[in-house]
Amino acid sequence: MKTVKISIIGFGAVGQGVARSILSKREYLKKQGIDLRVVGISDSKGSEINTEGIDIENALLRKKQKGSVAVGTRSALDIIADVEHDIVVEATPTNINNGEPGLGNMRLALKSGKHIVTSNKGPLALHFNELKEAAQDNGLFFRYEATVGGAVPIFNLVHEALAGNRVVGIEGILNGTCNYILTRMSEERMPYDLVLKEAQELGIAETDPTYDVEGIDSAIKLVIIANSIFGLDSTYRDVDVTGITKITPEALELANRNNYVVKLVCEAREGKLTVAPRLVLKRHPLAVGGTQNVASILTDLAGRITISGKGAGSIETASSILSDILYIVRNS
Amino acid sequence: MKTVKISIIGFGAVGQGVARSILSKREYLKKQGIDLRVVGISDSKGSEINTEGIDIENALLRKKQKGSVAVGTRSALDIIADVEHDIVVEATPTNINNGEPGLGNMRLALKSGKHIVTSNKGPLALHFNELKEAAQDNGLFFRYEATVGGAVPIFNLVHEALAGNRVVGIEGILNGTCNYILTRMSEERMPYDLVLKEAQELGIAETDPTYDVEGIDSAIKLVIIANSIFGLDSTYRDVDVTGITKITPEALELANRNNYVVKLVCEAREGKLTVAPRLVLKRHPLAVGGTQNVASILTDLAGRITISGKGAGSIETASSILSDILYIVRNS
Repeated sequence: MKTVKISIIGFGAVGQGVARSILSKREYLKKQGIDLRVVGISDSKGSEINTEGIDIENALLRKKQKGSVAVGTRSALDIIADVEHDIVVEATPTNINNGEPGLGNMRLALKSGKHIVTSNKGPLALHFNELKEAAQDNGLFFRYEATVGGAVPIFNLVHEALAGNRVVGIEGILNGTCNYILTRMSEERMPYDLVLKEAQELGIAETDPTYDVEGIDSAIKLVIIANSIFGLDSTYRDVDVTGITKITPEALELANRNNYVVKLVCEAREGKLTVAPRLVLKRHPLAVGGTQNVASILTDLAGRITISGKGAGSIETASSILSDILYIVRNS
Repeated sequence: MKTVKISIIGFGAVGQGVARSILSKREYLKKQGIDLRVVGISDSKGSEINTEGIDIENALLRKKQKGSVAVGTRSALDIIADVEHDIVVEATPTNINNGEPGLGNMRLALKSGKHIVTSNKGPLALHFNELKEAAQDNGLFFRYEATVGGAVPIFNLVHEALAGNRVVGIEGILNGTCNYILTRMSEERMPYDLVLKEAQELGIAETDPTYDVEGIDSAIKLVIIANSIFGLDSTYRDVDVTGITKITPEALELANRNNYVVKLVCEAREGKLTVAPRLVLKRHPLAVGGTQNVASILTDLAGRITISGKGAGSIETASSILSDILYIVRNS
């Protein structure tokens, strides 16, 4: 039995999803010879530390009842630096202005000899290569499947399953909120404002939807893809972005009559990064509906390989984090 | 630089595709520190052996001009047993009656301490577990991404990228010929016989189309999936199979009016294996057109993950073989 110790830094939807998944997978993991223990959990109010392994059920219950996992005041940075463990699961919220607190957490993790698995887009959209190189220099894994596409394993697909291929381009629909809005506008012939309101009521769109509908979230994800797959050194400021706020039901209706749908498409090709509404043939592989995410990998040998699935959700994102953890366990 | 020696057993469309891919990837592979050499190639008429590495361009030219790669009479079995190398690429034609000659080639490869990468479905549809266990017992890799879905990396996706998930079911469209016929019948409102004839003229269907249109090819692929992913010990005789020959344009038209298409769907769930024409909603992820292949992986955490791409073609199949070779090189 291989004992693997991890910390969960950030205990919101994703962090709790990871905890719940580990709980439900305990037996499955033991069958594979892995004893996965959570030795530290932190949220904005404090933390719990147990070097032998935290009682996860208890931690989840406390979070639910008291709004925080905290039983002590040691910080995320304390856990990362001082508690002996193998992998830091960095699941604090994305901050696109300066990447904090995720960026500091990741830098410290690499300095302290811990592998990183993360769902936090901010640090990667700003300092991807710095983090990648620091991980390499220290012989550590830096895994970020959960940052893009939720449950959809885009990076693993390209780097492992399609290893024999040169990737010549990527096209994707990477924001479930926009895709939901465009799908509903098209199918119900409803105007943008009304559908946005509906999406907000369903919890699919935020009260301030700017980050999604103006294409910022899509641009950030595209930057992570481009840096990871094409080895670029771009930030989200390098993306040419147009959002979906100016799309009319009339435009969608015209598209529909000609067998097209309108999608907010992210594209990386020949070093150029664009996010913009595009006409997509209804039978094209990119034409997925609702909150689905999809990515087409354009390759020299395999041609176009398209993968789709749920782009958000705490358990779905936890799926990507867990697969990344298992990758590290198997390869270290 | 890591020198990796392989043999190509079977030099038809797939074997030549592998040779061409290796040729076009030589520089790319060298950049990754891999010096990939082909030390033996065999076809039904004979073989070429060069322990320092065959001139691939020359071998492809000879095959084209003379119909055979042969410059000597040593057999595939001679190469596998007697020539020192690391990986046997088994690319002889699928034989569903007894798996030969592929089965004998694979058994000998494992006995001789060689890893296997294959596109040959026959031996896997008949003796999957025997081969898998023999590989494990000998500490060898047995990789078969190219047997199902052409360029679409289904096995790598499940075993690596979705490693954190339990798979609860698989649905797929795994025969490009049937999918082409059904797509054309539906879109052009043409009867089965006429579309079949068109497909035969285009080289999409064989002169004797039984193997495809009766669902046998789909059943074989489903068996390989089920054995690999669910750890079953099934053969293609365990699959409940219905082909597409009795589908009428009227049925397709009726489906179309209700926003459905008819697809030959392979399904593995709770130990039950079925291949049958099914109604699929037009906007469902499985509803891919033309000769495309698609597989939906139904999982406990990630939900439904769907992957699609080209299901056939020599370069596309070579893509899967090359990715499997690289997997072995990286992990051995």
